[in-house]
Amino acid sequence: MKYTVYLSGEIHTDWREKIKNAVNEQKLPLEILTPNTDHESSDECGVRILGGEDNNFWKDNKAAKINSIRHMTALQRADIVVVRFGDKYKQWNAAFDAGIAAALGKSLIVEHATDITHPLKEIDAAAMATAENTEQVIEILEYLCRDY
Amino acid sequence: MKYTVYLSGEIHTDWREKIKNAVNEQKLPLEILTPNTDHESSDECGVRILGGEDNNFWKDNKAAKINSIRHMTALQRADIVVVRFGDKYKQWNAAFDAGIAAALGKSLIVEHATDITHPLKEIDAAAMATAENTEQVIEILEYLCRDY
Amino acid sequence: MKYTVYLSGEIHTDWREKIKNAVNEQKLPLEILTPNTDHESSDECGVRILGGEDNNFWKDNKAAKINSIRHMTALQRADIVVVRFGDKYKQWNAAFDAGIAAALGKSLIVEHATDITHPLKEIDAAAMATAENTEQVIEILEYLCRDY
Amino acid sequence: MKYTVYLSGEIHTDWREKIKNAVNEQKLPLEILTPNTDHESSDECGVRILGGEDNNFWKDNKAAKINSIRHMTALQRADIVVVRFGDKYKQWNAAFDAGIAAALGKSLIVEHATDITHPLKEIDAAAMATAENTEQVIEILEYLCRDY
Amino acid sequence: MKYTVYLSGEIHTDWREKIKNAVNEQKLPLEILTPNTDHESSDECGVRILGGEDNNFWKDNKAAKINSIRHMTALQRADIVVVRFGDKYKQWNAAFDAGIAAALGKSLIVEHATDITHPLKEIDAAAMATAENTEQVIEILEYLCRDY
Amino acid sequence: MKYTVYLSGEIHTDWREKIKNAVNEQKLPLEILTPNTDHESSDECGVRILGGEDNNFWKDNKAAKINSIRHMTALQRADIVVVRFGDKYKQWNAAFDAGIAAALGKSLIVEHATDITHPLKEIDAAAMATAENTEQVIEILEYLCRDY
Amino acid sequence: MKYTVYLSGEIHTDWREKIKNAVNEQKLPLEILTPNTDHESSDECGVRILGGEDNNFWKDNKAAKINSIRHMTALQRADIVVVRFGDKYKQWNAAFDAGIAAALGKSLIVEHATDITHPLKEIDAAAMATAENTEQVIEILEYLCRDY
Amino acid sequence: MKYTVYLSGEIHTDWREKIKNAVNEQKLPLEILTPNTDHESSDECGVRILGGEDNNFWKDNKAAKINSIRHMTALQRADIVVVRFGDKYKQWNAAFDAGIAAALGKSLIVEHATDITHPLKEIDAAAMATAENTEQVIEILEYLCRDY
Repeated sequence: MKYTVYLSGEIHTDWREKIKNAVNEQKLPLEILTPNTDHESSDECGVRILGGEDNNFWKDNKAAKINSIRHMTALQRADIVVVRFGDKYKQWNAAFDAGIAAALGKSLIVEHATDITHPLKEIDAAAMATAENTEQVIEILEYLCRDY
Repeated sequence: MKYTVYLSGEIHTDWREKIKNAVNEQKLPLEILTPNTDHESSDECGVRILGGEDNNFWKDNKAAKINSIRHMTALQRADIVVVRFGDKYKQWNAAFDAGIAAALGKSLIVEHATDITHPLKEIDAAAMATAENTEQVIEILEYLCRDY
Repeated sequence: MKYTVYLSGEIHTDWREKIKNAVNEQKLPLEILTPNTDHESSDECGVRILGGEDNNFWKDNKAAKINSIRHMTALQRADIVVVRFGDKYKQWNAAFDAGIAAALGKSLIVEHATDITHPLKEIDAAAMATAENTEQVIEILEYLCRDY
Repeated sequence: MKYTVYLSGEIHTDWREKIKNAVNEQKLPLEILTPNTDHESSDECGVRILGGEDNNFWKDNKAAKINSIRHMTALQRADIVVVRFGDKYKQWNAAFDAGIAAALGKSLIVEHATDITHPLKEIDAAAMATAENTEQVIEILEYLCRDY
Repeated sequence: MKYTVYLSGEIHTDWREKIKNAVNEQKLPLEILTPNTDHESSDECGVRILGGEDNNFWKDNKAAKINSIRHMTALQRADIVVVRFGDKYKQWNAAFDAGIAAALGKSLIVEHATDITHPLKEIDAAAMATAENTEQVIEILEYLCRDY
Repeated sequence: MKYTVYLSGEIHTDWREKIKNAVNEQKLPLEILTPNTDHESSDECGVRILGGEDNNFWKDNKAAKINSIRHMTALQRADIVVVRFGDKYKQWNAAFDAGIAAALGKSLIVEHATDITHPLKEIDAAAMATAENTEQVIEILEYLCRDY
Repeated sequence: MKYTVYLSGEIHTDWREKIKNAVNEQKLPLEILTPNTDHESSDECGVRILGGEDNNFWKDNKAAKINSIRHMTALQRADIVVVRFGDKYKQWNAAFDAGIAAALGKSLIVEHATDITHPLKEIDAAAMATAENTEQVIEILEYLCRDY
Repeated sequence: MKYTVYLSGEIHTDWREKIKNAVNEQKLPLEILTPNTDHESSDECGVRILGGEDNNFWKDNKAAKINSIRHMTALQRADIVVVRFGDKYKQWNAAFDAGIAAALGKSLIVEHATDITHPLKEIDAAAMATAENTEQVIEILEYLCRDY
């Protein structure tokens, strides 16, 4: 059985590459959607395309809104939303995506280390699986793709 | 004009009391909904009511799910969702509530200090107002309640 | 905080009375909705009102459809749906109600004894709480009603 | 006319194979979706992938949630949901799927023997057809696929 | 238990009065909504308020649109939609209302004489009850209102 | 621009063939969906597949429900719903389909002779076009398909 | 029958007062919602409450977003949305509100002079009534409120 | 990543051709949908196909309704809706489309010159990007299509 999967969240490690490699090697019937994972162009897109801003609030606002077009399209199109929380940064955008996914009725898979279980309890409680590493996420996806 | 308002997010300062006081003093036609703001009972409710757990993951899971009944009812009933981000803790639950509110089509007001604008840019971009303090939130609510 | 609660499921014990008594004694701000708990009129309503049937399939069909008007109105109106599974009968209607509640985005509380956990795992997995007895359900409701 | 069909319910007989064979032999334009029909991996997937649990409740919970990703995707994608009730086991998951299907506005076909009509009356009342055997289900599907 | 009920369909007999009388006499907790039952003002409202038309198509169009404001508000607000088919006129508006009610997920009760069962089979198939007379409709409503 | 079109309503003339011929000849990018237009199998499908009934009400009920699977799938999948009213029969099923189409937000095109404008005014008022003959329906479809 | 009515659009004449006066004098069961009709505070609310902006784009943006909280709450709560187009200004916000109202399934009444019929044809085509003056709007509302 | 894009709004300049050329030259994975951009046939389609009208209101009404079939299909199918406001005409239909797009949860990109910022502030406030020219719109689309 095939699925569309959106890989949201942390963009500073190669976890998305691991999943894409597994999809390719195992020929899993998954359409993979991602955010812009290039941090620099993600932050700068607003002022580069639409003109500079003196105030960083508006610089961020213009970028975040343009990126939201990609995020919202991916969230609405996905059957499964995977959100990875890393060990750095605030990652409120990842939690925000998880909230949108839950409210849209998408199946949520969360990946994070066990030492941040307590602050992520509300998101884990809405998730269909909480994985400790990307290998577990891949195993879940492989399991879900099997035909019977 | 009257509104139902859910005050989500940070629970370690008295910002909700400030809003409630303003509502009472100015007789604003606002129904105010809140999460459980008692940290201890919020964390312990699952194991206290439904029985203990050896693993903290499941302790947290049981509590978060019971609390989600209140959160989801409030989010669905609200016209306006106010989410305050403080200067402590991960506050992923606040960002998660903001995502649910946005996806449900609720009007979102975010309150946070200016030094955390960058990590909150996705949430600010979905908000109808970004306030720097609770006084501004109160002014917005007062403005919205006026009759014409 | 107030809620509308639909008490679905098993109708052969007095669990609903326990909840209603607690609501009255503790003055909980809960609107309680119930199915027809009178087994005999529930089964006979179709043929009594709309005329007899030779085939029991159609007798049951007419009754189930009339009763569904009450069930669907209650499920759509409720914030919280409590479904109790007892130790007798097939109780597929209770599981069916739980599925409707989950798909409508209602908060689901399931009550059942621990020896039927395995066959109820899909429903428990969609629930916000799994209680072992009615006292626990009452404690959850009391906890959710507190004002802050 | 083509349809997407989800075959939910009982997994201990070969009824799905009969339908798939008919689809192949008659070249019916049906996309067939199924749950995991391998009972053992369905029960064990949670602890195998995400780690063991001392308490069977949580073992079941982890498995049921992972499997729900497949179930919910299939239920949302289907035009028609067929639910078969056999003569063994509690089958509350089948009734739960039927409830989700009904609430999502999917066309429901139920298959069961006539001796369990009474406890299934609520589900039959929401169904577009109640079949006594898989041959009848196949006839309905064949009839619906005809072009005019 | 209380309900909001919209009485759609035929406007040339006193069936709505019978229901309203029963509601009053039995003090049933029902909010009753009706279309404009005054045939003349219903047909003329468009040209009277908004100006005359040479072409009857537009005269009818203006009236039907103004009346649809009432119909759509009632259909969206109702828990139960009762549609009566009489023995005169085309009554396509009654069938049209039944379709809207079904698509909005409202509980549909249809009343008609048995000699028009065949052309009404699609509407009866979507209904939760098919009554032969208004007394049966009243009995169903009375039954649904009982408290347990 | 391409569309999916459901041709509902009257099945006793060759109007659907005219539209299909135009689609083929002009190579219009339209996916055409139809109900079962074979009156006899449409009426008999319930009892043929699922077993006979003594009471014609249930014979009709079984057929109408099986056929509704096709109708509801087509109505949900369509961008445009065309409903033709002829000069014979009650055609309440056509009006019922029009109501479902309107409530689902589908674009409705109605075709009927001018002498039945008055009883169809509510349906015409919800339609995006009222055609007097099939040639006009074809012209509308051709116009809508043009690329710019 | 009672309705909630949102009076959107032009704010430079006293048309809303005329409607409110009629409601009061005739004791019509209408809940009237309005935007902020004080042009100055509507334009300035963003910078007054949340701080000044050098760029008028952001000044307007902050005001428009705060005002949208009121607009969206009113549009979602209303049964009927009345939009008046005057003879001055661009009034794109009025047309924007009309689009939201139409997409939310609200009954739309448009008021405008006949000389701007052509550019308003898309909005008139989605409306349930096009009035030439406020007296006609009042007559429609009075007509819709009658009890039968 | 691929998107479906509806290019609504102004039809008197070649801005859509610029976007289509960029899509072709850069092989962007975009499905482009447009309204009828031929002003004359857009205005005349109603009376040409369905018969003449003495009153221009009805001529416009018939055309606008036929065209709405294309507009609504495009708006519902699109991930992104681009609305361009030019320097001529009332363009209320463009603002109306923007309102529908916003209410349907589509990502809105608005293009207009800076001198009409104030009257467009409500629409800009609902947009994910406000571009000053078509080149900026193209840059945004190109940026959103990148694969990671």
